Amino acid sequence: MFQNKSLFPELTTVNDEEHLVIGGCDITDLVSEFGTPLYIYDENTLRNQCREFVNEFKKRRSDSLVIYACKAFINPAIAMLLQEEGLGLDVVSGGELSVAQRVEFPAEKIYFHGNNKSQDEIDMALNYGIGRFVIDNFHEISLLSEAARQRGIVQDVLIRISPSVDPHTHSYTTTGTLDSKFGFPIETGQAKEAIKKTMAEKSLNLLGLHFHLGSPIFELEPYSKAIEVTLEFSKEMGLPLKELSPGGGFAISYTKDQAPPAIADYAEEIVSAMGSNEARLIIEPGRSIIGRSGVACYRVGGQKDIPGIRKYVSVDGGMGD
Amino acid sequence: MFQNKSLFPELTTVNDEEHLVIGGCDITDLVSEFGTPLYIYDENTLRNQCREFVNEFKKRRSDSLVIYACKAFINPAIAMLLQEEGLGLDVVSGGELSVAQRVEFPAEKIYFHGNNKSQDEIDMALNYGIGRFVIDNFHEISLLSEAARQRGIVQDVLIRISPSVDPHTHSYTTTGTLDSKFGFPIETGQAKEAIKKTMAEKSLNLLGLHFHLGSPIFELEPYSKAIEVTLEFSKEMGLPLKELSPGGGFAISYTKDQAPPAIADYAEEIVSAMGSNEARLIIEPGRSIIGRSGVACYRVGGQKDIPGIRKYVSVDGGMGD
Repeated sequence: MFQNKSLFPELTTVNDEEHLVIGGCDITDLVSEFGTPLYIYDENTLRNQCREFVNEFKKRRSDSLVIYACKAFINPAIAMLLQEEGLGLDVVSGGELSVAQRVEFPAEKIYFHGNNKSQDEIDMALNYGIGRFVIDNFHEISLLSEAARQRGIVQDVLIRISPSVDPHTHSYTTTGTLDSKFGFPIETGQAKEAIKKTMAEKSLNLLGLHFHLGSPIFELEPYSKAIEVTLEFSKEMGLPLKELSPGGGFAISYTKDQAPPAIADYAEEIVSAMGSNEARLIIEPGRSIIGRSGVACYRVGGQKDIPGIRKYVSVDGGMGD
Repeated sequence: MFQNKSLFPELTTVNDEEHLVIGGCDITDLVSEFGTPLYIYDENTLRNQCREFVNEFKKRRSDSLVIYACKAFINPAIAMLLQEEGLGLDVVSGGELSVAQRVEFPAEKIYFHGNNKSQDEIDMALNYGIGRFVIDNFHEISLLSEAARQRGIVQDVLIRISPSVDPHTHSYTTTGTLDSKFGFPIETGQAKEAIKKTMAEKSLNLLGLHFHLGSPIFELEPYSKAIEVTLEFSKEMGLPLKELSPGGGFAISYTKDQAPPAIADYAEEIVSAMGSNEARLIIEPGRSIIGRSGVACYRVGGQKDIPGIRKYVSVDGGMGD
């Protein structure tokens, strides 16, 4: 179990009774108190991951903001912790936004992503005064511009483009290539059209561009390649970038055999690729912040040993785990 | 859409406004009232499916009981409807059992299946006076016999065996073969051992055997083959079968190209295979009862037409749908 400690939270040990101890808490005590299945998140590990992301990017580029991708996991306690660490939030649904609202998360640091925002979600986000919408499709330009106009406001937005860069991850989680349900492809002229349409809307203020290549991305080059494509495209479009978000997708170890790049490596690659461009850099890690801090505890129930075939061990966790 | 009406509930039509109408209800009205995503279940179709199962088995074998596999979908309204139609329930978790309790479903008609029943779930079921436990593994024999003993009761049980018959369905949903996490294999001698252990427990009353081959099963022969194996095995064991449950797994059409056997065909095959054996026949359909009555309604949001590649249409349903 401990051949690669980086799969577990930072302060994880095994005590004399052979119980797992995380952050000073004996897991068997936690399980006695809260039952199983039990999801444990280690605050210390979580805060350190936040700080490492913020520091590695800030020290290379002071005008940068790390926003946490709530889809990786969010609840009110974690949202408060992220706020204390100076991060923003990337939300993709009304549910995630409602968690942010519950802890009065600063609206200006919330980015609303997603490829199918409903009218209700758009209204909810505008009513909360959310910082940025990341526009994904033409339908959203219509819905959002109209809703902002009705409120007499000018909404800051980014546009999600698809730079057609393959990050070499699983085909199911590759999102930055041409055949993707996310974003406007540069290749087809649709990104250009989206920028023109957005700039023509008086109730929308286009601050910059976003792309997300997929996840997890174990290579560094796709980031710099996609940034170059995006900067070149902005130049051609005559679009002054006030913000650029190269998304997330930063890899973590699922097994002891995996060795993803360090956060510093990602930061170096991304910041270098930005060159002299003056846009604010928006970074969107999710699992790479929360993953290591989380541990799922199950109770073993029935076991079935089928001679010569295999041994089945049942736990009280779902197939989704 | 209507090339094969049997994919939709029985009284489904399209009206002059080109709206889908189910059981006399215009879907656009339902969506206006309840929003999307919306799951609709048609009572008429559901009741008719219940009646067809009950009738086709009863008329061939009067001592038979159809129990609905709640894992296919359950809520209090549906549980009440099933009770009115004379069905029992197959539950596999405390959650499903709590729905049954909520509508005061007759305890004697509830069968508790599942390969990892927890102590809490066993207690809950015993406290409700549940009709049958279907024992899946040795751990359960210990837990259940002890819990029954403590209450001073004798609990009626079946034992789930694995007859090593391949139903030729998807490997992920094949459960009656040797390499399965469900049941005691006959082949390894574990079924024999389980029967002996159960019969040795004074707090358990072994009424018979259960197997479930997988789902969906488009062939009839696996049922008769597995019944023959089970009857032969019972004979060898000198076990008088008061109940025999050949499970469920009855196929339905997912697409217009699929033609599953009729309920009457399954009934004929199963009842014939039972021959002169006097056991009560327990039948456990789930999706084959509820499937056709259910319709999921989504709202189309953003659409993305990538020239030469494909068109994406976003709806407000999850990936699980």
